[in-house]
Amino acid sequence: MKIEGGFCPRFHKAVELIGRRWTGAIIRVLLSGPARFTELAAAVPGLSDRLLSERLRELEDEAIVERVDTGGHEAYALTKKGRELTPVLDSLGQWAERWIAFEPATRSASRRAS
Amino acid sequence: MKIEGGFCPRFHKAVELIGRRWTGAIIRVLLSGPARFTELAAAVPGLSDRLLSERLRELEDEAIVERVDTGGHEAYALTKKGRELTPVLDSLGQWAERWIAFEPATRSASRRAS
Repeated sequence: MKIEGGFCPRFHKAVELIGRRWTGAIIRVLLSGPARFTELAAAVPGLSDRLLSERLRELEDEAIVERVDTGGHEAYALTKKGRELTPVLDSLGQWAERWIAFEPATRSASRRAS
Repeated sequence: MKIEGGFCPRFHKAVELIGRRWTGAIIRVLLSGPARFTELAAAVPGLSDRLLSERLRELEDEAIVERVDTGGHEAYALTKKGRELTPVLDSLGQWAERWIAFEPATRSASRRAS
């Protein structure tokens, strides 16, 4: 039984970057186009302003997100590096649609009770 | 400026599940085939036995990984749900190869020094 996959530090960094709490959700919103801070905050329920700031700063540091000017208003947009995550997030979205239950906890609880 | 993407709780759960520390690396190794605990531990440097156990238990709970018997030895294998993550991890691997530097910290430090 041979492990052929091996360990790739670049893959490891990528998966933990995208998987950081809220980061995937923020990038997914920005795939639709630039958004202002308040629009991002409204689009991701449960995400505090403090955490949104922190995540955006991390994404700017990684050159995945950049600040742009949209008619005198500052907004956040994906860079080329960020936009190229589209196929990754698309295929994860398809997987989630197929395999992740909408309310898994409630469902398994009711199944156990019946 | 309209946010069309919206927020999808299933996508959110999927990205945070796969992005949990070490989980992506473990799944990636299992894409090559079943592996015993010690083989997994050896394939992912820096991952402690305690954390590997914890991650495997989570992945079993999510029905992404299952225990199989390989010639009298217990091993871990991806379920169908787990194997269907292949296109997600493949496209993330391609993105990482293109965009993630091998040692970004060292590189930017030497650039700053020159």
